Amino acid sequence: MARRGESRERMLRAAARLFQRQGYGATGLNQVVEEGSAPKGSLYFHFPGGKEQLAAEAVSMAGAELGTAMAATAARAEDVGEAIMAVAELFAAELERSDYRAGCPVATVALDAAADSEPIRAACDGTYSSWLAGMAELLRRHRVEDAEAVAVLVVSAIQGALLLARVRRDATVVRSTARQVADLALAAKGAR
Amino acid sequence: MARRGESRERMLRAAARLFQRQGYGATGLNQVVEEGSAPKGSLYFHFPGGKEQLAAEAVSMAGAELGTAMAATAARAEDVGEAIMAVAELFAAELERSDYRAGCPVATVALDAAADSEPIRAACDGTYSSWLAGMAELLRRHRVEDAEAVAVLVVSAIQGALLLARVRRDATVVRSTARQVADLALAAKGAR
Repeated sequence: MARRGESRERMLRAAARLFQRQGYGATGLNQVVEEGSAPKGSLYFHFPGGKEQLAAEAVSMAGAELGTAMAATAARAEDVGEAIMAVAELFAAELERSDYRAGCPVATVALDAAADSEPIRAACDGTYSSWLAGMAELLRRHRVEDAEAVAVLVVSAIQGALLLARVRRDATVVRSTARQVADLALAAKGAR
Repeated sequence: MARRGESRERMLRAAARLFQRQGYGATGLNQVVEEGSAPKGSLYFHFPGGKEQLAAEAVSMAGAELGTAMAATAARAEDVGEAIMAVAELFAAELERSDYRAGCPVATVALDAAADSEPIRAACDGTYSSWLAGMAELLRRHRVEDAEAVAVLVVSAIQGALLLARVRRDATVVRSTARQVADLALAAKGAR
């Protein structure tokens, strides 16, 4: 049973990595099996819903792990501006480390598959919602007013900047945009 | 010659529509030929670089048209806040009209193809750069300070909000995020 669980998880991680880098449409199941070093027949055993189930679960897993990393890095920051910069740095550093291949693990799948698959759409929506809730909670803890609305702006700005950074092959724009929203959040501390 | 030009343009428009909705990886050349009502053999005649050339030209064409529409709608606005809202509305309305299938015509291709193709990356980069230049010019005209930096924030926030809107199947977040950056731009009019 342990080995079955391991092979399932290996496939899920391989799928998450591939979808993040090359999108849903371009990723073949054979590639997932190969990169996951899994027996060929085991994919439909573990994922009877096939590629769709694999993508939905891969997005949810990668999103939850990134959400945990965001919360942990933000908790170590001294103020809310530093916390926002640290969250953006998680994405910027991963983009650089991957030679501008690995952007947001949700965005790539969301754009090319969410319209055609309800399970994938729901997984992307659930991940973004949990990130937004985590950011709003962080902002409230730092006494930022209108925490929900500011959280949407912070997350949207970082996500959009990641798109620009990816095609520029330069993550500077992620850090400078994060600095702008960080300053806004600092200014919104009991400002109204 | 006129008919040749027409068939080339029809294919390009079909390609732009398909890439925007389903991404680069999932779009097949047969589908482009079929939707473009073009003779099967004509694709490589018009686009010797194949799918890669088609995608790079489709992104550039759709991006330039959208850039022109943004400038026109912004020019009719009474103040800079209204101008930013009008630009965001172009994206939000298209997303709704397409039943949440047509997001930004650059983003989908950027995420699943820009890392593997230099011509596609350059086309996406060029389009974003021209949108940023247009937004900075608009902000400067309305005497917004730090126009370049604010333009990056406005464009990033709208792009990121479009991602959230697409997986939520609700464009409200695009309009509310645009309202936030519009208020910021209004506040940055000679504020410093």
